[in-house]
Amino acid sequence: MTQDNFYQPMMSQAGLKPTFSVLALDEYGLTNEVHIAGESPLTLFIDNKEVVTLMTLGIYPEALTIGYLRNQRFIEYLTEIKSVCVNWDRERVDVVTFKGITEWDRKISKRTITTGCGQGTVFSCSVDKIYHVRLPEVQIKQSYIYALLNALNQYNEIYRQAGAVHGCALCEGTEILYFVEDVGRHNAADTIAGQMWLNQWTGENKVFYTTGRLTSEIVMKAANMGIAILLSRSGVTQMGIELAEQIGVTMIARAKGKHFLVYTGTKNIIFDAIPSMDTVKILDKHYE
Amino acid sequence: MTQDNFYQPMMSQAGLKPTFSVLALDEYGLTNEVHIAGESPLTLFIDNKEVVTLMTLGIYPEALTIGYLRNQRFIEYLTEIKSVCVNWDRERVDVVTFKGITEWDRKISKRTITTGCGQGTVFSCSVDKIYHVRLPEVQIKQSYIYALLNALNQYNEIYRQAGAVHGCALCEGTEILYFVEDVGRHNAADTIAGQMWLNQWTGENKVFYTTGRLTSEIVMKAANMGIAILLSRSGVTQMGIELAEQIGVTMIARAKGKHFLVYTGTKNIIFDAIPSMDTVKILDKHYE
Repeated sequence: MTQDNFYQPMMSQAGLKPTFSVLALDEYGLTNEVHIAGESPLTLFIDNKEVVTLMTLGIYPEALTIGYLRNQRFIEYLTEIKSVCVNWDRERVDVVTFKGITEWDRKISKRTITTGCGQGTVFSCSVDKIYHVRLPEVQIKQSYIYALLNALNQYNEIYRQAGAVHGCALCEGTEILYFVEDVGRHNAADTIAGQMWLNQWTGENKVFYTTGRLTSEIVMKAANMGIAILLSRSGVTQMGIELAEQIGVTMIARAKGKHFLVYTGTKNIIFDAIPSMDTVKILDKHYE
Repeated sequence: MTQDNFYQPMMSQAGLKPTFSVLALDEYGLTNEVHIAGESPLTLFIDNKEVVTLMTLGIYPEALTIGYLRNQRFIEYLTEIKSVCVNWDRERVDVVTFKGITEWDRKISKRTITTGCGQGTVFSCSVDKIYHVRLPEVQIKQSYIYALLNALNQYNEIYRQAGAVHGCALCEGTEILYFVEDVGRHNAADTIAGQMWLNQWTGENKVFYTTGRLTSEIVMKAANMGIAILLSRSGVTQMGIELAEQIGVTMIARAKGKHFLVYTGTKNIIFDAIPSMDTVKILDKHYE
């Protein structure tokens, strides 16, 4: 969907190779050549002021940077950004804006560390603003949920090779529009947010899939992207539910094969593909 | 191991109920009563100065607080802490010290957001100091690895009920000394660090187990606790390996059933229980 005023900042294209080959000893004492995920620090500067250091697989650092700034609500419009330049030698990404960041001290001073796998970060200015968001109601067909889960099985390449990554996907109908893996699902989610912004995709009628848990922070990111339906193979938290109910996000979790649980927005599911009792396998729970 | 000068700060005992019962709709359109994990914000203040907000299951908030301060190297000795007081109504924990925190501005000003599930946080003062740590070499028997994995299967109660949590354990020989679950593995790890400090357990001859991935941040936490052996069912990252090699941490990962991979410290494994070829099942990889 292009427009006459389709703006993009000047950007580097500095994606890294995602996996490394290393040697490891197995239970037989035999040496195996295995693949592991990379993990590189990327320190984000806006107009030469340091914001944060992200640890990332490094495949889409520009989209990650832009998405991070969007989801943390440092920047409201893409047109505020003049350039995004990644330099891996210096382990930094420099964002230059046209007019600077408003309310810098307020935005940078308070930190909230959310769940992540313990200590993710959502600047608390995000949390305050999110309660004003109300998403439009969107319905989803059960058959589409199954089609998406099936399509998603084709992805997850890095995971298959190296493990130790999380995947997120932006979906529409039964299609995967964009799939991202990173060592952390918050970075993967922010990368999607960045790509959406750059391509002017709205969250309308989109589904956000993640391999990670649906915590309050992920719900918040989805809301920031305007996406009303979340899909995950993992579980949910109570605060994620509370936030989702407030903003109007539908949470479909523990999704695997034919099984899923709808925690919020139950009225938005169209049950057009209810499985018969004997074709459903109840899979073992796994750690997320 | 008690001593005459076994010091403990004054502490509240304010653990929360870990799971909640909610209703969710399954693939048949039927209502299920399911358990989900709680996720509560806890804002940490030292001498009335705000440090960070952690999202936690909330079962061991005092140990989490103390462990966080230890692992982030805000405080060097437990005897610096006068009191730790959790107040859930105000969603805060107040730590009072006897003499204040040295180098406050330096410790609080730089932030590093590490992998977590995207964006965990390790203040960068931790990173600088960790390269000076050298851990003593410790060996581990393969039979002990299997015994621990077996013992750990008995735990994970909250996970069985609600999913959406990570577990960490402090182990010695074939025993689990202490097992902690939290919505994030960094918080679970910090809680263990706090308990170790309070009980004056050293990391010597201990094994640190986590369901989460062995990233650079987890390696750093283990090193801060003086623990030289890491065990995980999940994968590793390349930066985790680099750091582990530098400090002398043995990484045993992808551990499930009889299978595991040793990424660093291979000479520290005593192969006294090599499985026979036909009893080993190669399990499917899972998302961490």
